[in-house]
Amino acid sequence: MAMSSKPRVVIIGAGFGGLTAAREVARLPVQVTLLDRRNHHTFQPLLYQVATAGLSPGEIAAPIRWILKSQSNIEVLLEEVVDFDLQEKKVITREQSFEFDYLIIASGATHAYFGHEEWEPLAPGLKTIEDALEIRRRVLLAFELAERQAAQSDTEPALQFVVVGAGPTGVELAGTLAEIARHAMTHQFRKIQPQQTRILLLEGGPRVLPAYSEELSRKAEQQLNRLGVEVRTSQIVTGVEPGAVRVGTQKISASVILWAAGVAASPLGGKLHVPMDRAGRVFVRPDLSLQSHPNIFVIGDLAALNGDNGAPLPGVAQVAIQQGKFAAQTIGRDLAGQPRKNFHYHDKGSLATIGRAAAVAQIGRFELSGYFAWLAWLFIHILFLIGFRNRIVVMINWAWAYLTYERGARLITGSNDLPGWNSAQRQPSQQDAKEISIRRRA
Amino acid sequence: MAMSSKPRVVIIGAGFGGLTAAREVARLPVQVTLLDRRNHHTFQPLLYQVATAGLSPGEIAAPIRWILKSQSNIEVLLEEVVDFDLQEKKVITREQSFEFDYLIIASGATHAYFGHEEWEPLAPGLKTIEDALEIRRRVLLAFELAERQAAQSDTEPALQFVVVGAGPTGVELAGTLAEIARHAMTHQFRKIQPQQTRILLLEGGPRVLPAYSEELSRKAEQQLNRLGVEVRTSQIVTGVEPGAVRVGTQKISASVILWAAGVAASPLGGKLHVPMDRAGRVFVRPDLSLQSHPNIFVIGDLAALNGDNGAPLPGVAQVAIQQGKFAAQTIGRDLAGQPRKNFHYHDKGSLATIGRAAAVAQIGRFELSGYFAWLAWLFIHILFLIGFRNRIVVMINWAWAYLTYERGARLITGSNDLPGWNSAQRQPSQQDAKEISIRRRA
Repeated sequence: MAMSSKPRVVIIGAGFGGLTAAREVARLPVQVTLLDRRNHHTFQPLLYQVATAGLSPGEIAAPIRWILKSQSNIEVLLEEVVDFDLQEKKVITREQSFEFDYLIIASGATHAYFGHEEWEPLAPGLKTIEDALEIRRRVLLAFELAERQAAQSDTEPALQFVVVGAGPTGVELAGTLAEIARHAMTHQFRKIQPQQTRILLLEGGPRVLPAYSEELSRKAEQQLNRLGVEVRTSQIVTGVEPGAVRVGTQKISASVILWAAGVAASPLGGKLHVPMDRAGRVFVRPDLSLQSHPNIFVIGDLAALNGDNGAPLPGVAQVAIQQGKFAAQTIGRDLAGQPRKNFHYHDKGSLATIGRAAAVAQIGRFELSGYFAWLAWLFIHILFLIGFRNRIVVMINWAWAYLTYERGARLITGSNDLPGWNSAQRQPSQQDAKEISIRRRA
Repeated sequence: MAMSSKPRVVIIGAGFGGLTAAREVARLPVQVTLLDRRNHHTFQPLLYQVATAGLSPGEIAAPIRWILKSQSNIEVLLEEVVDFDLQEKKVITREQSFEFDYLIIASGATHAYFGHEEWEPLAPGLKTIEDALEIRRRVLLAFELAERQAAQSDTEPALQFVVVGAGPTGVELAGTLAEIARHAMTHQFRKIQPQQTRILLLEGGPRVLPAYSEELSRKAEQQLNRLGVEVRTSQIVTGVEPGAVRVGTQKISASVILWAAGVAASPLGGKLHVPMDRAGRVFVRPDLSLQSHPNIFVIGDLAALNGDNGAPLPGVAQVAIQQGKFAAQTIGRDLAGQPRKNFHYHDKGSLATIGRAAAVAQIGRFELSGYFAWLAWLFIHILFLIGFRNRIVVMINWAWAYLTYERGARLITGSNDLPGWNSAQRQPSQQDAKEISIRRRA
């Protein structure tokens, strides 16, 4: 094809950064190849709603090739990148390799367990649709298994959900879990009382939402308490085992453990063999390119760059979006023979939701909390949801949930086993079954 | 509790039959325990819409305890029944056992592979939400892998979907797949042409929809052809292998194989040690109870009973619903000291959808096909969808899909592997990667 004589731009990852870069760079006379190991873009700010059964996966995720269908110079391929050949200017995937003139790496971040990867199966984190469905399964299953156990023994097992890490994800998970236990589940169980469920939010640092002001942290904690969340700060988790979390010498029992304590940059950064920070983020020049390879850009959660105030840029969607746009524009400047510029982050403010009618917002020096912060959060998130159809369906689901306190996507799919759940009561009934079959044969 | 002195009714399965029985019997002064190994009721007539990415699982399934929340004498438990102790009047689950005064068994049916269970991983059937998600994954993945292969070799692989069995499920799957390939996927791929996809519908008997009149079968086949489905009747599948189906000596290549060729009754019937028919369905008396145990009822797909015309009752929702209601009423008659009656099925008619604006309907002697049959199908299915919220969301999704030809739930979750997909092209790139790492070390 004639297209192949145009500069080839390869983009890795279709999160906020990669998707923005693809849209922006496709306006240039280039041929774009966007590689992602999933077929869909996930609207990560609403993932916690899938994890807590408020929304269905299809409502917060859309196929990448559908989003980009009208840009005919973008090719979208389901490929998992495993390595690079920087000398030959090639990206290597599991199946093949792709030559590039420009490369934009936007492969994002994953959970970090501080070197305790063995904790992951016991305490899942929330980064993908699969993660969200696994968390949903565990949360819903805990109520079902408690009801079953209560029917067996006529004693109500104590349900306790532990969320580790009080950043934005931990706060919204804890707040929403409290809401579910207090409201959505009531009157539907005959033996247990879901509203007795304890929700613990453990934070290693001195306060919740450490990226916000102390005043907003305090307000967020108040709102969490009002929703029924028990916040414990300065609690460093030292162990995770089936059914329990350890903090120092203390053992906290947990029906379900959720991990929101740390992120690490995508392991792809390490394949570049360039300097990285402790979290595995790649140091980039002020124009977001690599020191050694000006035609390779690293953006979003994988990039390590300080803002104009000297502090590292946060791992939020706004940074990724602005960097994606900037990297694309820099390619445009190169092609036009213009000098490159330096990236500057424009902080439009931060919003964190806590639960029903509870949120905090920081916009410049302006601070907001409670109902109006929540309304602002709702409005902005529905506005930016990709896909018109999704927006309507999400609005209906939320209006319904708000009016009725109900969660529409309370499905358990997959296994009915829960790690750490006491299944000692399982033996007797199996013995029963054996006795019966013996009796039958006799 | 005082409740336990009331007659205990245990119901197994929360499909159409079990759910209806539970609602009806709960009006009596009894204590009801409803056991299901899933936490949700699935609206099976719309499962094919989940399998073909039109609807999300949460839109056609609802938690059983949510559906029954207002009936306080119903206890819902997530339990898998594994055996019975009929002497002791006990139902045995994996975890415990339940004593009953009355038992209603409504555990339904599953796929049948005519003794070739090894075909199941290669040709999944459609009975559960998990099945639907697996079919969706395979169908969407086939297009993605074809595009990837075309990008590698610049030759377009021939996509061919084979649906085995032309009963209602096979017909609606084939029709909807054709619709997706012809419309929903177009303009979103750069290398392949999804509208070139061949959809084959293989039927062992002489005509599609054998339960309908010959005239309607003919019309259904015409509508299938118009949608782009190639119908082949009198084709007995003799083998299923990765990437191909065998019919006699002929080998038909298949990117995805879907199984809609047969159902077998739930294996639970065999645990009763009473007479069964060839499909594993339990012979019941005209009042739906067991000959040996008048306090045990078997209803729905698990029951073998002839209708007033002497023919076996079909495995459809209407039969299960009417039998569920009848079994509950019979318990009421027993408790009131009244004599039992015999069950009579009232055939309200049959509807089968084929695809966009295509369906057939048989209501007594009245036959209908095409657009108006499809409208009737749409109306009835939205009307009976459980849960008000779901109905609105499903209507919006359908209106959207109808106007735009788009499918809203096109997510691939889980593995990116497809059985039988030629992965010979995989080796070269792995060699590349090896060469590079050797070069790097050098």
